Amino acid sequence: MHELNVELGERSYPILIGSGLLSEKRYLAPYIRGRQVCVVTNETVAPLYLEKLLDGLPECDLLDTIELPDGEAFKTLETLNRIFDRLLERRHNRSTTLVALGGGVVGDMTGFAAACYQRGVDFIQVPTTLLAQVDSSVGGKTGVNHALGKNMIGAFYQPRLVLADMDTLASLPPRELAAGIAEVIKYGMICDAPFFDWLEQNMAQLLARDPAALAFAVERSCRAKAAVVAEDERESGRRAILNFGHTFGHAIETVQGYGSWLHGEAVAAGMVMAAELSRLRGEVEPEVVDRLRRLLDQAQLPTRAPEAMSVSQFLDAMAVDKKVIDGQLRLVLLRNLGEAHVVAGTSRELLVEALQTCGAL
Amino acid sequence: MHELNVELGERSYPILIGSGLLSEKRYLAPYIRGRQVCVVTNETVAPLYLEKLLDGLPECDLLDTIELPDGEAFKTLETLNRIFDRLLERRHNRSTTLVALGGGVVGDMTGFAAACYQRGVDFIQVPTTLLAQVDSSVGGKTGVNHALGKNMIGAFYQPRLVLADMDTLASLPPRELAAGIAEVIKYGMICDAPFFDWLEQNMAQLLARDPAALAFAVERSCRAKAAVVAEDERESGRRAILNFGHTFGHAIETVQGYGSWLHGEAVAAGMVMAAELSRLRGEVEPEVVDRLRRLLDQAQLPTRAPEAMSVSQFLDAMAVDKKVIDGQLRLVLLRNLGEAHVVAGTSRELLVEALQTCGAL
Repeated sequence: MHELNVELGERSYPILIGSGLLSEKRYLAPYIRGRQVCVVTNETVAPLYLEKLLDGLPECDLLDTIELPDGEAFKTLETLNRIFDRLLERRHNRSTTLVALGGGVVGDMTGFAAACYQRGVDFIQVPTTLLAQVDSSVGGKTGVNHALGKNMIGAFYQPRLVLADMDTLASLPPRELAAGIAEVIKYGMICDAPFFDWLEQNMAQLLARDPAALAFAVERSCRAKAAVVAEDERESGRRAILNFGHTFGHAIETVQGYGSWLHGEAVAAGMVMAAELSRLRGEVEPEVVDRLRRLLDQAQLPTRAPEAMSVSQFLDAMAVDKKVIDGQLRLVLLRNLGEAHVVAGTSRELLVEALQTCGAL
Repeated sequence: MHELNVELGERSYPILIGSGLLSEKRYLAPYIRGRQVCVVTNETVAPLYLEKLLDGLPECDLLDTIELPDGEAFKTLETLNRIFDRLLERRHNRSTTLVALGGGVVGDMTGFAAACYQRGVDFIQVPTTLLAQVDSSVGGKTGVNHALGKNMIGAFYQPRLVLADMDTLASLPPRELAAGIAEVIKYGMICDAPFFDWLEQNMAQLLARDPAALAFAVERSCRAKAAVVAEDERESGRRAILNFGHTFGHAIETVQGYGSWLHGEAVAAGMVMAAELSRLRGEVEPEVVDRLRRLLDQAQLPTRAPEAMSVSQFLDAMAVDKKVIDGQLRLVLLRNLGEAHVVAGTSRELLVEALQTCGAL
């Protein structure tokens, strides 16, 4: 079992990574402070791992389980309100702990519910997808989508523990595994070139779900993310580099409708667009873009815009992105492989060219 | 103009109290950091003060106004979502500032919207009721109601400025003025006995809306609240004394339905119940309860339970209150006039007796 810490002063918390962690009381139980627990999960994950998780909980006075419908389409204020309904009907009080068992949607919504319920209760992340393990469960970004934009409603709210059990990846559909690998590749691109090299060497093992390879990739990704988050919890500066590929990716998700492309797939294509733009600005060699494209290809991730999505749809959707500050679009671009930075006010011409290079109409 | 500061480290902010502040650029404008502003107000307040407030704003690239329906009944997630709809339609970004112009409902909802919109944007409180000026606008409690409980969904989120213009109290209906006075009296009861004496001497002037008397009462109340909040921002301890009368009051509001009794009216009756319970526990002299009752009477505030509300309705509604920790009801009681403390696990018999003494069936 690997343990690493997200250093945020009084809001610090550990990430535990390993196999067989879920059902063992010594991992989960010490982080539950009261005698009330509500596990939030979804219809897909519950039959697979809920029972194991319940084995890992301490004795409680009040224990509830909420099963949400599965999918990004349900990451809404309405679904959030279902969590509040249940918590209030069952009279959970301020000492309750919410446990998120599932992927990013379950984690984001449960975290946001914990942030808002009675103005804040404890919560624990038990991510069961690769994407959630390496990205959304770490760092405290919680929230829901709005018809006019992804993750537009939310809070920065840190969990008390992240428990990443590699065993839960065994049941992950191949497309979702690949979507998680997109974010893993991102860490290599933005801040860890040796890890990118490692990924080029070990992609086949990851796709074959070799447990040691997976654990290494999760730990290295979490370390990268924890370091960035510790430096800039509320994204006033450096944390923005974690959004590499995301402004493009969110545009894809918004225009296609949530749930059509997976988040990681949209980020994969978005990373190529950001890399192409960096190349057009003369910041990186074409070789870097090629290596990124090849690695994504190997993971069977998209590297181009969705068919029939136009440049103007991209530009329109990107204008409402959270990274717009006083009218200037801020994009995460590359200086080199393993080195990202935030650029404000990119030339519109180059942006259009990058989008077209990646197949936007 | 009086200025005092809520000391919360990097989240500190000033409270400005005086007359004619609203329309003067030098008060409001320095606290708006970006070039986007959205004023949230309601149908009742907008015709009276919106234009004045707009005069006090700096030049903006994007300026919107949202008028909510008036009343506690609209303090819901649905109304909150109307704010998000507008902000997104109009493309407000992370640099926007939300300005709450109105009473506690507008302030609580606007603050919660600011806490959640793109995971947090600036906001400013411009309270236009006495209740909001002395209580809800200070201290960062924001949120909405749920059918199963008041203020159950929310966040601790501090404004960047509170601007309390005494001129806005001129138009306040007498019943709402009295409701604000209930919270003013509360500060005397819980932590400022000399202020309670002053209130006994000056209640007639307050009810006659003497500007100097009102400004003194607002400043003294805000000082009391700011001191308590600075000590315990997230209500892990001492801040709970601000809830004197509130657990009983919330029960009244929950059972009667929001909007039937005003919040301050429910708190008035609730304070008498808490004082009676303190007396029954032998902690305060009957004289203290009598003085409280007389002062509330003079302000034409209720001192008894609503007609036809039963003891069991009280107990039931109080069990879901946020002050319940691990099954123990925590109540704010008196040790003396001007000295409150939190008591866990009060005897049920005395609680019932206190409720009956105050007219609960």
